[in-house]
Amino acid sequence: MNRRVPLYVVGIGPGDQSHLSPAATSALEEASDWVGYSYYLELLTLSRAGKRCHPFALGCEEQRARRALELAASGHPTALISSGDPGIYAMAEVVFRLLDHFPEPAWRQVEPVVVPGISAMQLAAARLGAPLGDDFCVVSLSDLHTPWPLIARRLRAVAQADLVLACYNPASRRRHWQLGQLKEILLDYREPGTPVAVARKLARPGERLQRLQLQELEPQMVDMFSLVVVGNSVSRWFRREEQCWLYTPRHEQGGEPA
Amino acid sequence: MNRRVPLYVVGIGPGDQSHLSPAATSALEEASDWVGYSYYLELLTLSRAGKRCHPFALGCEEQRARRALELAASGHPTALISSGDPGIYAMAEVVFRLLDHFPEPAWRQVEPVVVPGISAMQLAAARLGAPLGDDFCVVSLSDLHTPWPLIARRLRAVAQADLVLACYNPASRRRHWQLGQLKEILLDYREPGTPVAVARKLARPGERLQRLQLQELEPQMVDMFSLVVVGNSVSRWFRREEQCWLYTPRHEQGGEPA
Repeated sequence: MNRRVPLYVVGIGPGDQSHLSPAATSALEEASDWVGYSYYLELLTLSRAGKRCHPFALGCEEQRARRALELAASGHPTALISSGDPGIYAMAEVVFRLLDHFPEPAWRQVEPVVVPGISAMQLAAARLGAPLGDDFCVVSLSDLHTPWPLIARRLRAVAQADLVLACYNPASRRRHWQLGQLKEILLDYREPGTPVAVARKLARPGERLQRLQLQELEPQMVDMFSLVVVGNSVSRWFRREEQCWLYTPRHEQGGEPA
Repeated sequence: MNRRVPLYVVGIGPGDQSHLSPAATSALEEASDWVGYSYYLELLTLSRAGKRCHPFALGCEEQRARRALELAASGHPTALISSGDPGIYAMAEVVFRLLDHFPEPAWRQVEPVVVPGISAMQLAAARLGAPLGDDFCVVSLSDLHTPWPLIARRLRAVAQADLVLACYNPASRRRHWQLGQLKEILLDYREPGTPVAVARKLARPGERLQRLQLQELEPQMVDMFSLVVVGNSVSRWFRREEQCWLYTPRHEQGGEPA
């Protein structure tokens, strides 16, 4: 009998293990091999006893996915580890693209199984209050794979349609001009005082959550560990003594067509 | 000393408890009172020993949130239970809206704490492959709180900007015409063969996942338990023997400005 070997594409959530689901824990426990960016492997506090770890440098997503596919194809149940949700700007897309475009005969023995996780925008939203309480859009500012004109067109559409925006990859070590462009596009349609939050390394050492107005957003506020949330025209701060939350009501939608 | 009492707004994930995070489990265990839609309370397999349960009928979101606020204000650590993620079309928005607009003096003693969960679109995406692998938009078709012209304007913007779409609340017991409108709007910009998936009750009894083309989507395919995912212009099915996955590559972005 020809049983397939599982390749678990596992989301471990944004930081510490308080958001690691039982399904993700089971997948990690069942796998003999863990493949992932070295920093994500370090974030895992689950026991590594008996596991073979395959740490990779930042980037190298295709190499990581190939290694995981090869391990599973050679009979080892493998976990390919993503932070956040593997389906949102992470490894699931890479695995299916490789399987589809480079179908190595041995890979037919691999059974890809995606295990979802809490994505950074969800933890940011929870800490902030309920900024994603109405319709929203999720856009990556990385033009490594998507051409900037298409990203800009999407940002313009989001701004015109008064959608809340969760913005991944606002900058990297070599890339910082996109956030200025984002701000310029949004200011064409949204008030300067629109609520914005910049979340960085939530649930990890060095966690930070900044609350500001759209007009105050500056490229130096973000790096590759940041996520930016921009409210729509009715998103509101709710202040109580020293506390401050952000939420987007579904009730008072105004916004006439632009 | 005047210590605040926690009101946990807890996401239990889309169905069974395999996606219930340790943070959510802790919050539920710490609470003396559980408030929620009766069906969600039934989905929980966690021990109820010593818990007071406050089941509510479908709808009544404000009543549920008020009850939870009152319980916490009277000194009982309380869990207000959402399926999926409380921050995505769920209870977190209701709690902060009530706190902001109807600030009962007693409610100042309540500490709202949102605990994120896996939302239906994430489990649907995981089962399908990686349809949310590129930029995407999340829109609810319910016009109970958001006027239809604004929803339609958002759908048009999403379609024009070639964004993947995750569509919540495509229909209810009394509301079924919106899906036809969605299809009509999308077909103005997207190919009839665009990949679509309809997910229903994932990880619950009666689970179903339908794979189809945009032109085949019909209102009778959805109800209040359904979620609809619509691919962008490069989303692809990947077939292998009896299996079929959907993914959206970040690589081959075409899509000239509309």
